[in-house]
Amino acid sequence: MKTPDAGLAPGATIGILGAGQLGRMLALAGARLGLKSHVYAPDAGEPAFDVAAAGTVAAYEDEAALTRFADAVDVITYEFENIPAATASFLARLRPVYPGPLALEKTQDRLIEKRFLNDLSVATAGLAVIDSADAIEPALRKFGGAGILKTRRFGYDGKGQAMICDAANGASAFASFGSVPCILESVVPFTREISAIGARGRDGSFRAYDICENSHTNHILSRTEVPARIKTATADRAREIAKCIADALDYVGVITVEMFFIDGTNGEALIVNEIAPRVHNSGHWTIDGAVTSQFEQHMRAIAGWPLGSTERRGRIVMDNLIGNEARRWPEILQEDGACLHLYGKADIRDGRKMGHVTRVNPEQAD
Amino acid sequence: MKTPDAGLAPGATIGILGAGQLGRMLALAGARLGLKSHVYAPDAGEPAFDVAAAGTVAAYEDEAALTRFADAVDVITYEFENIPAATASFLARLRPVYPGPLALEKTQDRLIEKRFLNDLSVATAGLAVIDSADAIEPALRKFGGAGILKTRRFGYDGKGQAMICDAANGASAFASFGSVPCILESVVPFTREISAIGARGRDGSFRAYDICENSHTNHILSRTEVPARIKTATADRAREIAKCIADALDYVGVITVEMFFIDGTNGEALIVNEIAPRVHNSGHWTIDGAVTSQFEQHMRAIAGWPLGSTERRGRIVMDNLIGNEARRWPEILQEDGACLHLYGKADIRDGRKMGHVTRVNPEQAD
Repeated sequence: MKTPDAGLAPGATIGILGAGQLGRMLALAGARLGLKSHVYAPDAGEPAFDVAAAGTVAAYEDEAALTRFADAVDVITYEFENIPAATASFLARLRPVYPGPLALEKTQDRLIEKRFLNDLSVATAGLAVIDSADAIEPALRKFGGAGILKTRRFGYDGKGQAMICDAANGASAFASFGSVPCILESVVPFTREISAIGARGRDGSFRAYDICENSHTNHILSRTEVPARIKTATADRAREIAKCIADALDYVGVITVEMFFIDGTNGEALIVNEIAPRVHNSGHWTIDGAVTSQFEQHMRAIAGWPLGSTERRGRIVMDNLIGNEARRWPEILQEDGACLHLYGKADIRDGRKMGHVTRVNPEQAD
Repeated sequence: MKTPDAGLAPGATIGILGAGQLGRMLALAGARLGLKSHVYAPDAGEPAFDVAAAGTVAAYEDEAALTRFADAVDVITYEFENIPAATASFLARLRPVYPGPLALEKTQDRLIEKRFLNDLSVATAGLAVIDSADAIEPALRKFGGAGILKTRRFGYDGKGQAMICDAANGASAFASFGSVPCILESVVPFTREISAIGARGRDGSFRAYDICENSHTNHILSRTEVPARIKTATADRAREIAKCIADALDYVGVITVEMFFIDGTNGEALIVNEIAPRVHNSGHWTIDGAVTSQFEQHMRAIAGWPLGSTERRGRIVMDNLIGNEARRWPEILQEDGACLHLYGKADIRDGRKMGHVTRVNPEQAD
C-alpha cells in the first residue's frame, strides 16, 4: 500500500527508543493503524517489548546495534527526552528522527530550554546560573530569599530538584546533586499546574487537545482533569504557546508544555515550566476520552499522515496508579465506566507508575 | 499482584489459538489491562504475532508444541471456532480453555448447532439433513422448492454454502462441496440481518451490547450500524436469546448470535442463523464506540474479572475495508472522526479483511 505523498505506508516500521509505558502505548497505537514497532532499550524487562513486533536490547552507545536498528526501521522516535544527544545524532544520519535533534538540544538542558523560551518571549520563572555553591547566595537574594535548585540535565518527577531558602541548605543540595551544573529558579506563586498537549505534522499543521489541569503528589503526577478550570482565552493562549514553541523547533510529533497558571488580581497569567518533547502522562486520558489518542496522534505525525481530531468525549478525570495504588485494580474493574490501564510492569515499587484509570463523564452544563 | 478470587492477576499470560485480526485485537486489548498474550498459529505471517509477547508457529495437531504452549500460558482462548476439537480437548486437559469445549462441540457442526438451538426453543430456519444427493429433492419439496445447502462443518463468509432451487443444481453443489455431510435450510424471508453480542463471565454474569444491524456484500460483512432499526422489545428479546444460549453452554467469554430479523404483518420476529463462539466482526465498533470493547470484555471474562460497561458512545457506522477498499486509507485518515484500523496484513487480496473504519456520531433525537 503506497502512500501518495512522502509519508509512510501501512506496514512500515516505527523505531522507538525507550521501552517504558510511553513506548508501550505508542506501539499499541501504531498497531491499530497497521504500523509495526521496533523497540530499542538497554533493559529487556521493560514493558514495551511485550507488544512490539521487534526489539533490540542494547546500550544507547552501541553503534553496531544502533546501525542494525536503523536499518530495520523506517522512522525513529523516542519516549523520553534524555536519550544521549550522540545517540540521536548518530541515528539521524541513518534515518529520519522525529522529533528532530533541535527538540532534544533545546529541552535536555534546563538552562538552554529557558533561554530558548525567553527568546520566544515566553514567560518563565526567574533564572540564575549555578555553576558553584558560591553562586547560590546572590541568586537567592535576587529571588527574595527562596528558589528551586535544579540540575540542568536528567531531571524528571522531581528528581534533581530541591526547594532552598538559605545558602547553607542550597550548598548541601548542590553537593547532593554531585555539584553538577544547576540553575536556580524563582518560586512561582501559581494557582494550578496545567499542560498543553499538541501535535505538529510534517507539513507544519498543528492540533492541540483541551488544556489539562494537573495535580502532583511527591512531585509525581497523580491526577489530570480536563478541561482545566481556566478562562477560554487563557486556554487559547496556552495552546498558542505550545504552537509557537513547536513551530520554532520545526517540531514533528506530540509536544507537551507544562505551565503554571496564576489567577492573579490583574487577570490570568501563564508561566512555562518545561517542555516535554514527547507524549505525556497528562495526556493518557486521550486514549479513552478523545477521538484520537495522543499516541495515535504522535504516530500519525511522524508517519507524515494527517493529524486526527482532538475532540474530547466528555469531562475527564485521569488518576495515575503509583506503586501500591495499582493493587486497587480489582475494585477499579468493578466500577462501570472506569477505563483501567496497566503497563505490564512485573514489580510494584514506591513511586513507580504502574498504570492509570480514566473516567469520562458527561459534559456538565455551565 | 494477586487477585482476591480465583481469577488471573495482571501479568498473567493469555494463550490465543489463531493469529488473524481477531487474535490481534484480543492481544491489543489484553495489553491495556497488563495481560500478556501468547499466540499460536500454523502460519508465521499472520498479523497477531506482531503485537504478542510470545508466539508459537506450529500445526494444531503438534502435541509437543501444544504442550509447551499450555505450559507457558495461564488460560487459553481462540479467535475462531474451527480449531480441531481434538486440539481443544487436548489443551483442556492442561489448562482452562474458554469458551469451553461444549461451545465448540455445539457450534462446529451446523446440524448439532440447529438441534441445540431448537432444544432451547430458539427459532431457526427449517432444516433437513443431506447425507447424499438423493436427499435433496424431498427436502426441497418440503421447503417450497428452494433452500440453502450448507456443509455441516468449516463454513464462513459464505464458503460452503449455495442457494439451490432444483435437484440438479443441488446435486452439483453437493458434489462441489466434496459430497461431505450437509444440511439444507429453508429460505428465510428476512427484512434485515442483525447480531447480538454479549459476554458471560466465569461467575455467570452476562452483559450484552446494543443490537447490531449488518449488511453483507458477496456474503462478507460490509457494514454494521448500531443500534439496529428494530423495536426495543425485539432488541431485548435478541439479547435474551444470546443470554439463554450462553447459559445453556455454561459459556465464558464473548458470544455472538447472528439472527434474521423479520418485520412481518404479525409483528417483529427473530430467527437465529448461527452462533459464533467468539468476538465478531460486527462488534469491531465497540473499540471506539463503547466504553468497553468486545476484545477487552472477552479478556475480562476469561480472566475471571468483572465484565465492563457496554454503554454506547453514539450512533455507530462501522465499515469493513475488504481487499482494495483498504487503499482508501489516506482519505479515511483525513476525515475527522473516522477511526481507522488496519490489521497489518502484508498483501491485499480480493475478499480479504484488511481493516475497518468506525464513525461514532452524536445520538439523534427521536
